[in-house]
Formats: sequence, C-alpha cells, structure tokens
Amino acid sequence: MNITGSTRVFFILGDPIAQVRAPELYNHLFTRHGVDAVLVPVQVPPPALEGFVRGAMSARNIDGLWLTIPHKAALLGMLDRCDALGRAAGAVNAARRNADGTLEGALFDGTGFAKALDHFGIPVAGRRVLLVGAGGAGMAIAASLATRGVAELALFDAGPGRAHSVAQRVRAAFAAPVTTAESNDPSGYDLIINATPLGLKDSDPLPFDVNRIDANAAVIDILMTRQATTLLKACAARGITAHPGYEMLVQQIPEYLSFFGFDSLAQELQADSSEVRALLQPR
Amino acid sequence: MNITGSTRVFFILGDPIAQVRAPELYNHLFTRHGVDAVLVPVQVPPPALEGFVRGAMSARNIDGLWLTIPHKAALLGMLDRCDALGRAAGAVNAARRNADGTLEGALFDGTGFAKALDHFGIPVAGRRVLLVGAGGAGMAIAASLATRGVAELALFDAGPGRAHSVAQRVRAAFAAPVTTAESNDPSGYDLIINATPLGLKDSDPLPFDVNRIDANAAVIDILMTRQATTLLKACAARGITAHPGYEMLVQQIPEYLSFFGFDSLAQELQADSSEVRALLQPR
Repeated sequence: MNITGSTRVFFILGDPIAQVRAPELYNHLFTRHGVDAVLVPVQVPPPALEGFVRGAMSARNIDGLWLTIPHKAALLGMLDRCDALGRAAGAVNAARRNADGTLEGALFDGTGFAKALDHFGIPVAGRRVLLVGAGGAGMAIAASLATRGVAELALFDAGPGRAHSVAQRVRAAFAAPVTTAESNDPSGYDLIINATPLGLKDSDPLPFDVNRIDANAAVIDILMTRQATTLLKACAARGITAHPGYEMLVQQIPEYLSFFGFDSLAQELQADSSEVRALLQPR
Repeated sequence: MNITGSTRVFFILGDPIAQVRAPELYNHLFTRHGVDAVLVPVQVPPPALEGFVRGAMSARNIDGLWLTIPHKAALLGMLDRCDALGRAAGAVNAARRNADGTLEGALFDGTGFAKALDHFGIPVAGRRVLLVGAGGAGMAIAASLATRGVAELALFDAGPGRAHSVAQRVRAAFAAPVTTAESNDPSGYDLIINATPLGLKDSDPLPFDVNRIDANAAVIDILMTRQATTLLKACAARGITAHPGYEMLVQQIPEYLSFFGFDSLAQELQADSSEVRALLQPR
C-alpha cells in the first residue's frame, strides 16, 4: 500500500481500537484493486467523539468514518441524514460527508444479516421469527427483518422492558408485525436467532432450549467466534440447520464500499466473495 | 505496509496536501524497519486547524503531527511547549503529545540546514554569513545559525522591514550578532544563502550578484528543484562552491524520527543516509 498526498482517507473510530480488523481487510482490498484510499484506526474516547468527528469532517481529504463500539449509537446525534434502518435501530456503522457537506449515516449490520439469510437460502417473507437479544445487534437485525415481509417477528430479551421498547420502535418505523415474546421458547418459529452474547464463554447457558426447536426451523447464532458455539453444536446434534454469524460480516463488506462510493469494487466483491472470505480467515 | 488496530498514527497537516511526499517517505521507512506506525496526509483548511488538532490530540493512538504550509506558524499558538528554535522562528515542523498530555512543538528546518553545512564541510563558527530572504525558511535558518557561533549573520529581504524584524527577534532569542544588510551584495561574506523563492521560475532574476561573491565563499540555494537552479549554475561557472537545498531535507529526517521517539531508527539513518537518499529521488 502506497499512501501519497492524494490518497483519500477514512477513519474507523472505536474505543478500544486494537482489536479491529477492518483496516487490514479494507486496506488489502484497496491495494489489490487499485483504489487510492486508506482506512486508519483511531481510538476516540466517548467524551471526545463529537469534537473529533467535527474536526475530521472539516478536513478536505477525509471522506468518511467507520464506527465501532462504543460509537455506533452516539454518532446518530451528529448526523444530518441517516438511512431508515439506522434511524429505527438507533445506530450506524458508517458516516460519509456528502458533496453538499452534510454528514450521512447508514447501518449495515441488519442488511448483512438479511443478505446472509439469502446466501444460506433461508426465507424470511411469510415466516415466524424469534429474535433472542434486543441489544445493538438485535435492534439492527429486527429493523432489517421488519422490512422483509416477516409474518411475525417476536423479540425476547432477559433485560426487563428492552424487547418491548425495541419492538415498539421498529413497529413504528416500518408498520411491521413486530411483537414481544413472553419467553425464549423457540417452538413454533421458523427461524430463531441468537443475538445475545451467550456462548462467548464456554460456561454460558444456551440462549434457548434447542430441544424445543421445530425440526424444520433454522437457527443463526450471530456470535463471531473461531470455534462453533455450544448452540451450533447442539443444533447440529439434533440435525437442525444452524449457521454462525461470520456470513453477516462477509455480506456487509460490499455495503460499506458502495456507501463510500466504491461501487465497482463493491459489485465485484458481491459477485465473488472468495477474496473477502480469504481475508477474513482467523489469524 | 500493514495497518492494524494497534498501529500508532501520525498526521501530516497541510492545505493543499496532494504535493506532500512525507507519507511515502516515512511509511516506507516504518515498513522497512518494522515500526508499527503510519503517517497519514490530511488537508485541513486554515480556519479548521485548531478544531482539527484538538480533536486529533484527543484520540489515544494519534501520537503526533507533521506540519506543512500553511500551518507551521499557526500551530505555535496551540502548543504547551516548544523548542527554542521554533519559538525564535515562530514556526514548527512537528508537534507531539507528551506522556503528560501536553502538546510540544519543534522546528527542524534550521537544524537540517546546519547539519547540511556540516555534511558539506562548510564551517559557520567565526564566519560572516549573508542570508537573503527572511520568510519562513529564512527565519528557521537564521535561528539555527544564531546558535552556532557566527561572527556575523546579516539578513536581507526585499520586503521592507521584514529582515529587520526577524533580525531583532533572533538577536533577542539568542543574543547573537544578527544584523540587517543594507543590500544583497554578497561581497565580504564567507557563506551566502538564498532563502528566497527566486529561481523557481527560469525567468527569475538571481537573488544576488554572483560576480561579487568572494572566491573562497560558499553558496547554498535552499530551493528544492529537480534541476540545478540558475544560481547554482552561475556559481559553478565561476568555480564557487555551491550546493542545493536537498541535503537540508535529508538531514531533517532523523530529527523528526527522534522527536517522535523512534530513536534507534533515527540513529540508523543518521549513521547511513543512503536509504533516505534513494527514497528522496525525484519521481
């Protein structure tokens, strides 16, 4: 990668930042595909976010921002424009400076999830979906599924009131059949999603009872771990179709690139994701 | 170059920025010598400088700034600490965030010039020096020479009052014999320096009369051009020792690296500058 005075600059903002893999991934893609751009990691403490973003957006060769924890929700208040999914979920993955100087944000987590379902051949339209976990990832997935014709999207969260508030918010945004589930019982659903952190530790309980999943249902566990989670293993043991969250990540990459105007690279990687898959291999 | 989440980040701030070569140079050095750091070009309009710098310095992995036109003087007002050369010349090349959070600046232009003289074997102590041009580069050179035991440092500038004000400022800072020359007549000086932009265009007049230079005097033309300037050619025709400004640039590089804490790399390049010279070849 050869950074010159005419290279376009993007930042990924997080705190901490050492764990992010986006700079390696996107800089490899930029270099290999002849895009004169660089993605630079920046560790911005939460109280400094607004000042940093205002400063960065005043620079003429800084074209946009990737946002990661804990800035995805906080940036929303600084935007002039935002896509419907970001507004409904209350968070964005990225923000760009438009030609007219406005700062526009967008959320790709849910779109990545929906595209991953397409990739696996798991239908959503007309189906009953149980989403367990109504945190940041759950909200993004709920917003995206609400726009895709679900028969019912039921939310469950162990935190009191959280599922209710997300359901209300998403229902209001998209007039979709989004409800609150009274329990995490997966029986009767066509698709069950784990959007909780349960499974990151070996000692975690399962997010729902695998024995009560309908035989034809599918499961997605959005946790990004190197090994198969206990949930995925339990589904496999029962012969239930189940997939990890990795594909969400693969499917999001063309969304970011397209949002930032790298359309031909986005299309190329959408048509053939083998390069992205190779880059995303665990270190 | 492999930018990861743990890479330390530096910016070079200028407006325009496309012409800067520092990112290529320093990023090549970082990569080849295993330093996990990146220098990123940022085009900051002058009114946005303060906001940008305050934002950038709030980020935990951004360790410092390179400054180029038009920000070298403007940054001075934002510093908590500054070296004596920068204070005297009213400009800095670089600023770093110290461990205690203070922003400290330093000027290397003059040090680079003085080290270039050492490299060429041109003595300064006890000599009479005429410096033509009292702009930014002239001020930096004047400040540096004032600390090196000149017998006389005479400043001349076509801009009325400018040489006088710089001479006064440098004299006050270092109690050195800095005077104002009444003309650009080079006769009677041991070293004559062109620090004006005259010579950038072929149609420019010479900055001083080469025929009146003492036979044993030396000339430095600080202009950075690919071809020898008319001044250098005229000196060569008379057999006068004369050097271009390129060496100033070579000699500054270890100063930047040392200032930002890359001491072993700085020492290595100070001992053997062949790698730097190869990287600085005109494109």
